[in-house]
Amino acid sequence: MFECPVPEPVSDRIQMAHGGGGRLMNELIRSVFLSAFGCPSGGVQNDAAVLEIPPGRLAMTTDSFVVQPLEFPGGSIGSLAVHGTVNDLAMSGAEPLYLTAGFILEEGLPLEVLARVAQDMAAAARAAGVRIVTGDTKVVERGKGDGIYINTAGVGIVRHGLEISPSSVRPGDSVLLSGDLGRHGMTIMSLRAGLSFGDGLESDSAPLHESVAAVIRAGIPVHCLRDVTRGGLTATLSEIAESAGLTVKLNEMSIPVREDVRAACGLLGLDPLQVACEGRYLAVLPREHEEEALNLMRGCGVSAGACVIGRVEELGTAPLLMTGLLGVERVLTMPSGMQLPRIC
Amino acid sequence: MFECPVPEPVSDRIQMAHGGGGRLMNELIRSVFLSAFGCPSGGVQNDAAVLEIPPGRLAMTTDSFVVQPLEFPGGSIGSLAVHGTVNDLAMSGAEPLYLTAGFILEEGLPLEVLARVAQDMAAAARAAGVRIVTGDTKVVERGKGDGIYINTAGVGIVRHGLEISPSSVRPGDSVLLSGDLGRHGMTIMSLRAGLSFGDGLESDSAPLHESVAAVIRAGIPVHCLRDVTRGGLTATLSEIAESAGLTVKLNEMSIPVREDVRAACGLLGLDPLQVACEGRYLAVLPREHEEEALNLMRGCGVSAGACVIGRVEELGTAPLLMTGLLGVERVLTMPSGMQLPRIC
Repeated sequence: MFECPVPEPVSDRIQMAHGGGGRLMNELIRSVFLSAFGCPSGGVQNDAAVLEIPPGRLAMTTDSFVVQPLEFPGGSIGSLAVHGTVNDLAMSGAEPLYLTAGFILEEGLPLEVLARVAQDMAAAARAAGVRIVTGDTKVVERGKGDGIYINTAGVGIVRHGLEISPSSVRPGDSVLLSGDLGRHGMTIMSLRAGLSFGDGLESDSAPLHESVAAVIRAGIPVHCLRDVTRGGLTATLSEIAESAGLTVKLNEMSIPVREDVRAACGLLGLDPLQVACEGRYLAVLPREHEEEALNLMRGCGVSAGACVIGRVEELGTAPLLMTGLLGVERVLTMPSGMQLPRIC
Repeated sequence: MFECPVPEPVSDRIQMAHGGGGRLMNELIRSVFLSAFGCPSGGVQNDAAVLEIPPGRLAMTTDSFVVQPLEFPGGSIGSLAVHGTVNDLAMSGAEPLYLTAGFILEEGLPLEVLARVAQDMAAAARAAGVRIVTGDTKVVERGKGDGIYINTAGVGIVRHGLEISPSSVRPGDSVLLSGDLGRHGMTIMSLRAGLSFGDGLESDSAPLHESVAAVIRAGIPVHCLRDVTRGGLTATLSEIAESAGLTVKLNEMSIPVREDVRAACGLLGLDPLQVACEGRYLAVLPREHEEEALNLMRGCGVSAGACVIGRVEELGTAPLLMTGLLGVERVLTMPSGMQLPRIC
């Protein structure tokens, strides 16, 4: 009588009652989320998951995702929500373990879209070796949301003793970039602008923790790590340089940008160095470990295109400088306006 | 030059660029969030906080908040976002430690509203003894949100060895309720319906972990805990009873509902047993510990009105039964429609 069979949803769209705490919400959780994520630790009926954790310091992070469109070449808001939080954990050198998933759904959302996104999220979590252990669902009226917003929070374990932070960066350090820039942002912007750049342009969204772990496990004293997301390389490196009170000098020729990304940027009037990625990171580390780190990064698929793009120096005329093709040095400033709304 | 002064916001409303990852987002984080929450562990510039954790199992939970209106008698979406997640952790008997805060802001939101909500959130966290250690901000266009949505995720430490779960519930157990029902839900619904019930009606939103800790610390073998939120007492107890495969028998006369709440429910055609609280919980525990547990709960301000409202029996005609004034027994069923949208 109380065996909790998996019921068929009574409507094919999200209704306000799906967020009400009653029968319909329970059915949604069972038919969509549990069928994608599996049964959480502590059982379905507990609001908190109770988890075993290995010894170490705990890394904790959160990220909300409001990307439009919800599905795009190379992923969806679901896989992005997993990669974004896994990568935030990875940038502290943590081993990601557990994620939470909070959904804010708009009334009228087709259930099939939600089911696809949940399946994509579950697949991304499996591939990254993390577990989605607990969740929450709210529903807002039509016109008060945009289909699906997802928040993921994550915890991981920090086993190393490094202080990975801009304050650890030193003059002379090398700045490594894990691959070419701007594919995620330009995939989303091209879709929204109705442009097509052949079938080559896909989001770079990917989990970065294994690439980072390879470098840290080798004993390389990494000084700083940062994934290249909103604001792109320029914002990310400006923040590091400003926090460190040093100058980062980039070599424009060494920064990889694919031709299709460069073309899309040209057409839309964007600077590829300010476009977000979701599967690229920067590592700042002592120059003597540069070669070893490059080799380890290139040994991982997600960072096969790793390269050295610049060096850290004592504070000069500005925190971020770039030397171009003709040897002319120019100042890069943190983007101040809004280039790319809703790309993550 | 790079001392990171707290800048004045350049506009008094949220703009799309506040979510863009550039200068304006940095300013928003400094002027609103850091001034409310203080500087996070690991510094401002890291996406993940790295935290020391005491030994024990880890409890982890998440909750999104979409309440309308954003501010109400007895709290705001900010304090609610702290209490909701603290209480989810408390219901596993955990000691809440750290919260994350993810904001989805609607373009055009007055910055002063955001500042008030952030201050309220910070005050609630301080009062509950938890720290907001990391956060995230996204901005969506006008008409794609509703001012502010907040997600909080939380971790806590479980130091007891109890299995607090519906599966631990046994026939003969007592069902204790920590106080009167429905104040939060009816405060919100009255505001939305434009009704006024004097100045007495305030949300019951409050942190419950200290009341729970008092019971667990005394060595009382608690079987199940649940906060009475969406769907109210009926949904909460139905879920426990169905999961346990047992029947819970309530005594209607023993369930406390204030007169103003009852009046508001009458006017709006609502059942107070299906109205959400944000500061009430149920404890199911062995009858022989009932008196001691009641005394401990009554010793805490948030659960001063604790009482025994029913007993667990072998599975009878339905999972949830209630005996009324005239001794007539009736079946309570899980609410299936949408009574109260956007109350949390």
